[in-house]
Amino acid sequence: MNDLNRETAGVIADIDATAQRMADAARQAILPYFRVMNLHQDNKLEHGYDPVTQADRAAEQAMRDILAAERSADAILGEEFGTKSGTSGLTWVLDPIDGTRGFVSGTPTWGVLIAVSDRQGPFYGLIDQPYITERFIGAAGRAAMTSAAGTHPINTRSTPALSEAVIFTTFPEVGTPQEGAAFRAVAQQCKLTRYGMDCYAYALLAAGQIDLVVEAGLQAYDIQAPIALVQAAGGIVTDWDGGPAHEGGRALAAANVDIHAQALDLLRGTPK
Amino acid sequence: MNDLNRETAGVIADIDATAQRMADAARQAILPYFRVMNLHQDNKLEHGYDPVTQADRAAEQAMRDILAAERSADAILGEEFGTKSGTSGLTWVLDPIDGTRGFVSGTPTWGVLIAVSDRQGPFYGLIDQPYITERFIGAAGRAAMTSAAGTHPINTRSTPALSEAVIFTTFPEVGTPQEGAAFRAVAQQCKLTRYGMDCYAYALLAAGQIDLVVEAGLQAYDIQAPIALVQAAGGIVTDWDGGPAHEGGRALAAANVDIHAQALDLLRGTPK
Repeated sequence: MNDLNRETAGVIADIDATAQRMADAARQAILPYFRVMNLHQDNKLEHGYDPVTQADRAAEQAMRDILAAERSADAILGEEFGTKSGTSGLTWVLDPIDGTRGFVSGTPTWGVLIAVSDRQGPFYGLIDQPYITERFIGAAGRAAMTSAAGTHPINTRSTPALSEAVIFTTFPEVGTPQEGAAFRAVAQQCKLTRYGMDCYAYALLAAGQIDLVVEAGLQAYDIQAPIALVQAAGGIVTDWDGGPAHEGGRALAAANVDIHAQALDLLRGTPK
Repeated sequence: MNDLNRETAGVIADIDATAQRMADAARQAILPYFRVMNLHQDNKLEHGYDPVTQADRAAEQAMRDILAAERSADAILGEEFGTKSGTSGLTWVLDPIDGTRGFVSGTPTWGVLIAVSDRQGPFYGLIDQPYITERFIGAAGRAAMTSAAGTHPINTRSTPALSEAVIFTTFPEVGTPQEGAAFRAVAQQCKLTRYGMDCYAYALLAAGQIDLVVEAGLQAYDIQAPIALVQAAGGIVTDWDGGPAHEGGRALAAANVDIHAQALDLLRGTPK
């Protein structure tokens, strides 16, 4: 596939149709395992029963089955079943349950992540929250949220300064001690810091509800769908030095270039 | 009202009918303000427009209007409009939006709290999450959750030891430095620590999804509904010295007496 074609309407529409079927299949595969942990927790150690792992695998397999039928020329990078090579130049990047700690705690803030990337990085991103039935999709400069209330366009917001910003990260002990200190240097400038949302924080960023997500220690499959979604909604995602973030590691996702620049000033050069 | 009557079926049924109408009214009052903050954030400082405060007040007024019509002899303690005296011996304790920081961030983890207490403390508790349309109610040794999937009984779980426990608190910087250190002493013994759920953490505890919620700096209206709900579901809620928690301050909510005792050993005597 020629890079010039990545934002062609027909290409995106085909990818979106497949991705939505995959997300539907993942919902069906996962929900029977959500919030049943307490029923089985005593069995987990004794018999190796691990609902989140079973849900993870069932969902990724369901998504791969759809890709095998509909997009067999594309490559796959998945959290559970690794890589499959392809010939099209496109790679589907899958995380069937991002936020397994939230999942096992019963919080409705984990998600199914689906991205499609070419050699430049991810250009289609989908975050699905099966329990709430919210789906966030971004590609080609447009993003939308689908919920019980219908489908509506979403955009990042225009907060001009860190002092007005709401910042999220998943764990207060972000990454290494140096990375944690750098995160706190940004958070201390912000109006409000919140924790514990996993991929849902990027969805809130894309939907114009918050301003920054800063994380470290990511895998490629954790961040590719958030990158494509947030950028399609008008935001910007880089690593902590302003470079590409789609290979994983550290991510700085911001609602706009002004707030991105202010956060980057405080994160840049953090020792690895 | 005689204390012996607090768990009489007819008394609880009447209270529940009123409380559910109040929660319905609060949903209607609040949801128009949820996730619209970004549309108005530039106006907030300039014109004093503050959606969460407006939603808070509108919801508490809607609930008080129902109490005025249906339960005029009962007292009221509300976050927004203070106390109203009564003659029945019963007090309705209302927090129209618990978790305003989550609310302004767009997370679906804030809640409407309604409790009814007599001189012994709260004996009816309701936590409602309007956006997800989940409602958790507990009284007289029985608790239930209502969602799109219907109404089902809930119970706390039997996790026997901290090493197997999932613990929640709202902020990693729990209370004073001494209180924070005491919290971390408990959290370090646990399998998993999560943040940022506000009242929703108590609902997850009542529903058998997690094991402990430890907080400090609470108001009475923050904790009375969680106390009644968690206790009705089989759990136990005290302050950090094993005494009553319903006047606010510090709370230790646990799924069962074993895990409560283990956490209390680590929290007891924390300087105030």
